[in-house]
Amino acid sequence: MEINIQKRVLEANETQADINRRFFRDNNVFVLNMMSSPGSGKTQTLCRTLSQLMPGIRVGVLVGDVCTTNDAERLEVTGAKVSQINTDQFGGDCHLAANLIFDFAKPLGCDELDLLIVENIGNLVCPAEFDIGEDARAVVLSVTEGEDKPLKYPLMFQVADVAILNKTDLLPYLDFDARLAVENMKKVHPHMPVFEMSAMTGDGFEPWIDWLKLKVFEKTGR
Amino acid sequence: MEINIQKRVLEANETQADINRRFFRDNNVFVLNMMSSPGSGKTQTLCRTLSQLMPGIRVGVLVGDVCTTNDAERLEVTGAKVSQINTDQFGGDCHLAANLIFDFAKPLGCDELDLLIVENIGNLVCPAEFDIGEDARAVVLSVTEGEDKPLKYPLMFQVADVAILNKTDLLPYLDFDARLAVENMKKVHPHMPVFEMSAMTGDGFEPWIDWLKLKVFEKTGR
Repeated sequence: MEINIQKRVLEANETQADINRRFFRDNNVFVLNMMSSPGSGKTQTLCRTLSQLMPGIRVGVLVGDVCTTNDAERLEVTGAKVSQINTDQFGGDCHLAANLIFDFAKPLGCDELDLLIVENIGNLVCPAEFDIGEDARAVVLSVTEGEDKPLKYPLMFQVADVAILNKTDLLPYLDFDARLAVENMKKVHPHMPVFEMSAMTGDGFEPWIDWLKLKVFEKTGR
Repeated sequence: MEINIQKRVLEANETQADINRRFFRDNNVFVLNMMSSPGSGKTQTLCRTLSQLMPGIRVGVLVGDVCTTNDAERLEVTGAKVSQINTDQFGGDCHLAANLIFDFAKPLGCDELDLLIVENIGNLVCPAEFDIGEDARAVVLSVTEGEDKPLKYPLMFQVADVAILNKTDLLPYLDFDARLAVENMKKVHPHMPVFEMSAMTGDGFEPWIDWLKLKVFEKTGR
């Protein structure tokens, strides 16, 4: 029974995701869906990303959390247009569904943006199943989480267009094999670009910024 | 619509959880549901826990993952009875539901166990909503995940009977305020015991083992 219900929910989501895609195309904005476990460093990665892209690229952010507006507050100081989505008002959902993205993206003024980044709820399972009409998906894995996560949560790494291996500054203190982690990512998604970086120190950040700038340019011409 | 469907799924789960509770009581086994983000160190915590409890306390483990049998293999070397539940056969579920627990607990031989530990799927949202008929819930938070997680995922910390703050061996290398993390846990769940430890080094492990032994004794008399 539960599986049939899931299927119906996902079908309804797909219909809304198609509407979102048209809306984003009409507004000529590139949309990136950023996903990861809780505490992988999505917000810190975004803070540094925004500071490097703006004001040349006009960025908006939708931040998903079950509760709190902590992340929105951290991101607002960069000057980006930020809107917090708290799912505790919507059944405590563990993912951002397409309808929520539409409701929160509209008032953000997408026609004045080049790039809209959705910081999804920290969860390696459900967000991978919900198309939000985005142009690309990025998954962040931190080196403290273990090398096996791509094999344990394969769908997330299969649907991602790019992966960030974050917190590399901690490698000297961990029993973590970065080569093996990247190998495991490539097992479930061959040829996916993987950027090894530390959002804390900025080490290894440039290839990620270059990738993102190129993607925005390819869609928007800006 | 989605919220009503969730409600029906949770009601069906609650009925099965009551059946599980009777089953566990009839078998005189204490059941611990262990939950956390992916990569917080649940399996490493369990490996050390099993090595300290057995053979005096007879332990069985149900290990939940979307994919892979990695964790079951790591736990089997301790000599515990271990069974792996892969939810990719059941719609890729992001949590362990009560019916799965029943189906996998029965063949494990619960009448020969004092303690059954369920290592839930790495996820701070959905597992908190699904009663599996357990006697107690433990949540593991690692110090690499940030102090704000109890505020962002309050339900998980509200339903937990005890919390483990893991990977304290990494504190010297992190900008992490352990006092603030514990304060945030107590904000959402006052008086919850919090054990600060490193499952890697064993530092701070004894209070956790003492707590668990007491709980098993209170229910089973053994």
